[in-house]
Amino acid sequence: MSANAERPATVGLVGAGLIGRSWAIVFARAGHRVRLYDADGAAAEAALRWMADGLGDLADAGLLAEPAAVVAGRVAIVGTFAEAAAGADYVQESAAETLEVKSAIFAALDAAAPAEAILASSTSTIPASAFTAELAGRRRCLVAHPVNPPHLVPLVELAPAPWTEESATARARALLADAGQIPIVVRREIEGFILNRLQGALLNEAFRLVEDGYATPEDVDLAVSEGLGLRWSFMGPFETIDLNAPGGLGDYVRRYGPLFHRMAIAHSPPRPWSAELTREIEAERRKALPASGLAARQAWRDRRLMALARHKRAPERKES
Amino acid sequence: MSANAERPATVGLVGAGLIGRSWAIVFARAGHRVRLYDADGAAAEAALRWMADGLGDLADAGLLAEPAAVVAGRVAIVGTFAEAAAGADYVQESAAETLEVKSAIFAALDAAAPAEAILASSTSTIPASAFTAELAGRRRCLVAHPVNPPHLVPLVELAPAPWTEESATARARALLADAGQIPIVVRREIEGFILNRLQGALLNEAFRLVEDGYATPEDVDLAVSEGLGLRWSFMGPFETIDLNAPGGLGDYVRRYGPLFHRMAIAHSPPRPWSAELTREIEAERRKALPASGLAARQAWRDRRLMALARHKRAPERKES
Repeated sequence: MSANAERPATVGLVGAGLIGRSWAIVFARAGHRVRLYDADGAAAEAALRWMADGLGDLADAGLLAEPAAVVAGRVAIVGTFAEAAAGADYVQESAAETLEVKSAIFAALDAAAPAEAILASSTSTIPASAFTAELAGRRRCLVAHPVNPPHLVPLVELAPAPWTEESATARARALLADAGQIPIVVRREIEGFILNRLQGALLNEAFRLVEDGYATPEDVDLAVSEGLGLRWSFMGPFETIDLNAPGGLGDYVRRYGPLFHRMAIAHSPPRPWSAELTREIEAERRKALPASGLAARQAWRDRRLMALARHKRAPERKES
Repeated sequence: MSANAERPATVGLVGAGLIGRSWAIVFARAGHRVRLYDADGAAAEAALRWMADGLGDLADAGLLAEPAAVVAGRVAIVGTFAEAAAGADYVQESAAETLEVKSAIFAALDAAAPAEAILASSTSTIPASAFTAELAGRRRCLVAHPVNPPHLVPLVELAPAPWTEESATARARALLADAGQIPIVVRREIEGFILNRLQGALLNEAFRLVEDGYATPEDVDLAVSEGLGLRWSFMGPFETIDLNAPGGLGDYVRRYGPLFHRMAIAHSPPRPWSAELTREIEAERRKALPASGLAARQAWRDRRLMALARHKRAPERKES
């Protein structure tokens, strides 16, 4: 993750929930001035306290280049949209996931932000074209969809609308990459963008294998966490198969492509995840982890992600 | 990975290729006596040299509980099927991936092995019922499909035939778990077992997203290696979504299930991976990594897997 930005920017954040507060760490850690707005002032205050804890955890994990208080000091709560947008180089919206909310917020931001400011949405489901079409400044609007939580998982999907200027996407990409994130570009709008389409394809197969009695949910999870997911934590699916046949990816496809196609055909058309199946899998999860333990396990996940981030920084160094 | 077995077993290995030689490390590392057979004597000798290097790498990585030479000393090359099978508690076949070869080898092994020995195949594509139906000892035959390379990726898929005795599957499971592998059970025979069906589902979507111009192969790889794959290296897909909604997995499915189903329907029916698309993706891979660099990159992958194994042993310990 990044040291200070060469040129500190002013970043407006709208929404101080799970995603917004994690974005605050991302941008403050990179050296930027952050103005955090939430319609619920108490939520913004709670986000500041959460940030202080999160920055402390990062420092303890050796993942923060500066004292936590210095980083936290770059974040100020503001009371209006206009204050979050005024003077901003970049605004990241992480509010409720409805078209009405996004439309209203982007209209307000487009009116208040400097003409060259980038306006980005954290939405995971709504294309930018659905809530920016009517805006005077629609050419500088796009989706910048993070993975939860963005301060621990670097991938960000940039999904421009058809009218988004290439220079706007390029500036968003540069700012995010400078902050230590890994931006990719969704070249045409599509529901689910890239990451959730890949996740959904694997989940569809996982639900189906359980529904048809081929494997337990626990064994499906192990197939990933002790098998598939190991290579995928440092190589993507194409590089993985490129290294899994003597002659590379083309050789792999010639050997196994027909097999994978037969498997796909056999499980087509897709099935919805039924309520009964979901109850069955949830019951297995609740045996493994009571609902009262979810929050503690989420904190464990975040510690594991921090440890993995540290590991990926210097993977071949031996531990003490 | 495991220290010595409490009760050393005798393990016969048939086939000394990429998979067989890695199995030799798995079983010798666990303290078992290993008898390695390959129809090509030179291949068996080459496997011994490769093993010595591999064990040295494990020792250097801090992943071997004993001196490499002690572990290597447990592996003996034998010259016939009968010698590999004689006195064995467990035989693992890793020969060529054709039905004819598997059928011939299993007939020979069934005749030569003690009545209670487990006979397991490393096949990734052929169900056990296809090559064990006619055997007197078919009740002790099953598939034990590893991930490449098994001494670095612990998952093993146990796929019994309809006539495989539960006790045979249970004994295979115990032996492999004791050796530090993570066995899962494929409860009904299915092409591709569990792991490759999950991998195939994600690959199908990956190929399609590239073919339709939504993302470059590089960006698809990043979506996994810097996004999806991070959590999946220590939690499976069900646990991941269980922690991704406030109320757990059921809550997640209620929020996002319809979205994932719409995405699946939109990309149905499945398409084969066309030769043209494969050439295009392979060309991108070859720009990133010339064919002459594949072997070195495979060695890098194995070092990364070793480092990840070390990391997963004590994930929250800080590195030196």
